[in-house]
Amino acid sequence: MKSIRSAGVIGAGVIGSGWIARLLLNGIDVFVYDPSKEAPKNVNKVIENAERVYKKLLTSDLPIKGALSFSNSISDVAKSAQLIIEAVPERLSVKQSTYKKIESSADNSVIITSSTSGILPSDLQAEMRHPERLIVAHPFNPVYLLPLVEIVGGAKTSKDAIEKASSIFTNIGMFPLHIKKEIPAFIADRLLESVWREALWLVNDDIATTEEIDDAIRYGFGLRWAQMGLFETYRLAGGEAGMRHFISQFRPCLEWPWTHLMDVPEFTDELVDKVSNQSDQQSGQFSINELMQKRDDNLVDFLKVLKDNRWGAGNTLKEFDESLSKPKIKTEFSKLDLSQPLLTFESKIPKKWADYNGHMTESRYLECFSEATTEMMAIVGADQDYISNVGSYFTVETHIRHLDEVLIGEKIYAKTQVIYGENKKLHLFHWLYHDDGRLLATAEHMLIHVDLKTRAASVPNELVINKIGLVYGAHKLLPKPEGLSRAIGDKV
Amino acid sequence: MKSIRSAGVIGAGVIGSGWIARLLLNGIDVFVYDPSKEAPKNVNKVIENAERVYKKLLTSDLPIKGALSFSNSISDVAKSAQLIIEAVPERLSVKQSTYKKIESSADNSVIITSSTSGILPSDLQAEMRHPERLIVAHPFNPVYLLPLVEIVGGAKTSKDAIEKASSIFTNIGMFPLHIKKEIPAFIADRLLESVWREALWLVNDDIATTEEIDDAIRYGFGLRWAQMGLFETYRLAGGEAGMRHFISQFRPCLEWPWTHLMDVPEFTDELVDKVSNQSDQQSGQFSINELMQKRDDNLVDFLKVLKDNRWGAGNTLKEFDESLSKPKIKTEFSKLDLSQPLLTFESKIPKKWADYNGHMTESRYLECFSEATTEMMAIVGADQDYISNVGSYFTVETHIRHLDEVLIGEKIYAKTQVIYGENKKLHLFHWLYHDDGRLLATAEHMLIHVDLKTRAASVPNELVINKIGLVYGAHKLLPKPEGLSRAIGDKV
Repeated sequence: MKSIRSAGVIGAGVIGSGWIARLLLNGIDVFVYDPSKEAPKNVNKVIENAERVYKKLLTSDLPIKGALSFSNSISDVAKSAQLIIEAVPERLSVKQSTYKKIESSADNSVIITSSTSGILPSDLQAEMRHPERLIVAHPFNPVYLLPLVEIVGGAKTSKDAIEKASSIFTNIGMFPLHIKKEIPAFIADRLLESVWREALWLVNDDIATTEEIDDAIRYGFGLRWAQMGLFETYRLAGGEAGMRHFISQFRPCLEWPWTHLMDVPEFTDELVDKVSNQSDQQSGQFSINELMQKRDDNLVDFLKVLKDNRWGAGNTLKEFDESLSKPKIKTEFSKLDLSQPLLTFESKIPKKWADYNGHMTESRYLECFSEATTEMMAIVGADQDYISNVGSYFTVETHIRHLDEVLIGEKIYAKTQVIYGENKKLHLFHWLYHDDGRLLATAEHMLIHVDLKTRAASVPNELVINKIGLVYGAHKLLPKPEGLSRAIGDKV
Repeated sequence: MKSIRSAGVIGAGVIGSGWIARLLLNGIDVFVYDPSKEAPKNVNKVIENAERVYKKLLTSDLPIKGALSFSNSISDVAKSAQLIIEAVPERLSVKQSTYKKIESSADNSVIITSSTSGILPSDLQAEMRHPERLIVAHPFNPVYLLPLVEIVGGAKTSKDAIEKASSIFTNIGMFPLHIKKEIPAFIADRLLESVWREALWLVNDDIATTEEIDDAIRYGFGLRWAQMGLFETYRLAGGEAGMRHFISQFRPCLEWPWTHLMDVPEFTDELVDKVSNQSDQQSGQFSINELMQKRDDNLVDFLKVLKDNRWGAGNTLKEFDESLSKPKIKTEFSKLDLSQPLLTFESKIPKKWADYNGHMTESRYLECFSEATTEMMAIVGADQDYISNVGSYFTVETHIRHLDEVLIGEKIYAKTQVIYGENKKLHLFHWLYHDDGRLLATAEHMLIHVDLKTRAASVPNELVINKIGLVYGAHKLLPKPEGLSRAIGDKV
């Protein structure tokens, strides 16, 4: 999975600010360019709103918030960022000239994403020097809460750029939906545009007010669409007979005059007034910010419902939330320094790990060591895939020493030495440290390798035994850890 | 508010069954006609699903479930029902001949509602003898959970029929949305139809699969539409500048080719196959019933979220839930029989009122009497409005006698006699009865009228004192209740 530490955002309107908030709260430093003097104020308001709801959204703690800096030019942003998000107005020429400025300063490999609602990526990238790195990544307001981001490549976009960008967005809790064919307005906005046009006719012809149209959505099918979308819902409308039955039932309607859309309503001043005035009438009793907070509160609670019910957008949240509580050390084996104990765990102690007085509670020490063991196994090739298909190491004995206390919210890490690693046995020694260097605890584990099918002790596969051999070969040259092989009751 | 005790449903498909379930669970007896032999089985499955989720949806207990009967003909149904809901296939001729059969047996004043998704009520009522009683009441699947019902009158529909039907639907927890102008497909289905047509193009042209389209909805704007609909959401997309700004920003898009809808996709066999196969691919791992239960679980939790947040469809649920726990005796003062103690309380004892062995717990007796006092006050004009703006009666002394036990789930009622009612004082005597006639308890209360502003004892306003005078004038001619003016320790 691709992670980044810095990003640039060009344009800090509603969408740009939403991107900024999501990136910062994910621990990514953000460089922003927006010519408006109001931008910092508006951006900070959005960040404030995002922070308010993220506390409610997640059970895990977020990483330490990234740093926000406003730059004086697009090229300043482009120089500093590992990913550049363009969120400038919807005019092709404005976007193209933005890319020109970005490309004059950015590293050639930096991915540039456009937040456009509908312009084709092939058009966007037409004049670029490195068009392969341009993709559309179209998010939805509020960007810090809604998981969907439509990913669309142009004719010259590289597969690599699409994969990297998707991975980056997954890492910040989003649901990248890769749309394989370019089409103006992509998927979601085509659907939205069709409803928008129909709704404007209904207002124009005085069939319904804006409020009545909104009510027709939110008291009815809107509640279905938050979970299932269009086709899955209609599958159910067909009853046990399903989709085919539904289609045969409603096939004739397509030929009936059930939509105005053969024609496009003209946005006369009169229609603009009507829509705006009705909207004031409907929602004017709330300030925009009150409405935003209400929307966000509802979104958070919907997402939590879906998470509990393991459905749709809740699955994205669940994976994101879990990924935040997992150690994220992924070093290639060949790049490890085997002449030292290995880094196997890193975390900021989450709130829910507190005992009654705010220290990390006793049982969580073993949780840290258990994560360190899992990481050590992954390092030598006994990863999730191996565990699912070949075998695993079972802990047969554990000895823990508690040496110091640590508070929730503080950063800790673990190092691990392989004491013995041949045949079926793996003997590990872990040190758990505070970020300030204090030793908090040690743990010693004896593990036995077990075959997945026979459930009996067995020798690991060749790849794993070879890697263990390499680590053990190096680690046996290290001094024996202080406290190794202690029995309870031994003198200190 | 209009309540009914019986209803008829003609046609027991997905929509008809949903109506049946909602009506039954609201304590209404339902007579059903459907020519299919499978109907009873399918209807019972839907009722089962509805009962499963209603337990989770409501904090109050529902009334005792209505009785379900399948009739052999439309006229049998029409003879027995206070409201007739038509849910037969979407063909004008079928619907018109159904109304003909209904009208040959039903009382002339019985309201007939059509569940049509889009046929004009003026067309539906064209051949009726009493067209003024025909309205469209278009619900949404699952009818027992989604609050929306679109109410549309035809050229000949009476205002009275629209008001009565809206009131009936409100009483069973729905949100009647009165659409003032007839238009094919009304509001919601016009919006849905526009999305459906666009989505079919996207599938037809291989831009996206059914699953990708559903994901584009449910990971994005679907989550917004469950709470705010289209216009209020866009109001926020305009940021602080609101609706007018949003329109000016997106005005040009209307002229861009952002929708296919100028044209209607042809439902070739190939397209039917494609949609059905993709839908199988997407959702085929779940049975239709599993999917329905998943949908219902999510809907219940969404509705509860919105109820807690006091927003949109949650307000409908909140009012419905509260109405279930309130006594519902609303007789006009002029129609009361003052020569007898007055009915002031009626309820089925809710589960949460149980003591450890399933009897109504002691403190709830006073709750019943307190409700009876509130109702007595309301009868004489000291209602919620009066309490908020003028004054109220404060209980200064209470004497309760517990005479018999009663189990949860059983029906009880109270009657009240005014023992004295002049000046600032109101002396009441309540009897609490089981539905079978057993006397369960009595309560005697002395109340003093208090002025809202001075917080001191005061004479009620003229209207209230006059009404109390009328009741007291009649009640003092009644015998003194057995047990009046007892002190604790008095012999029985």
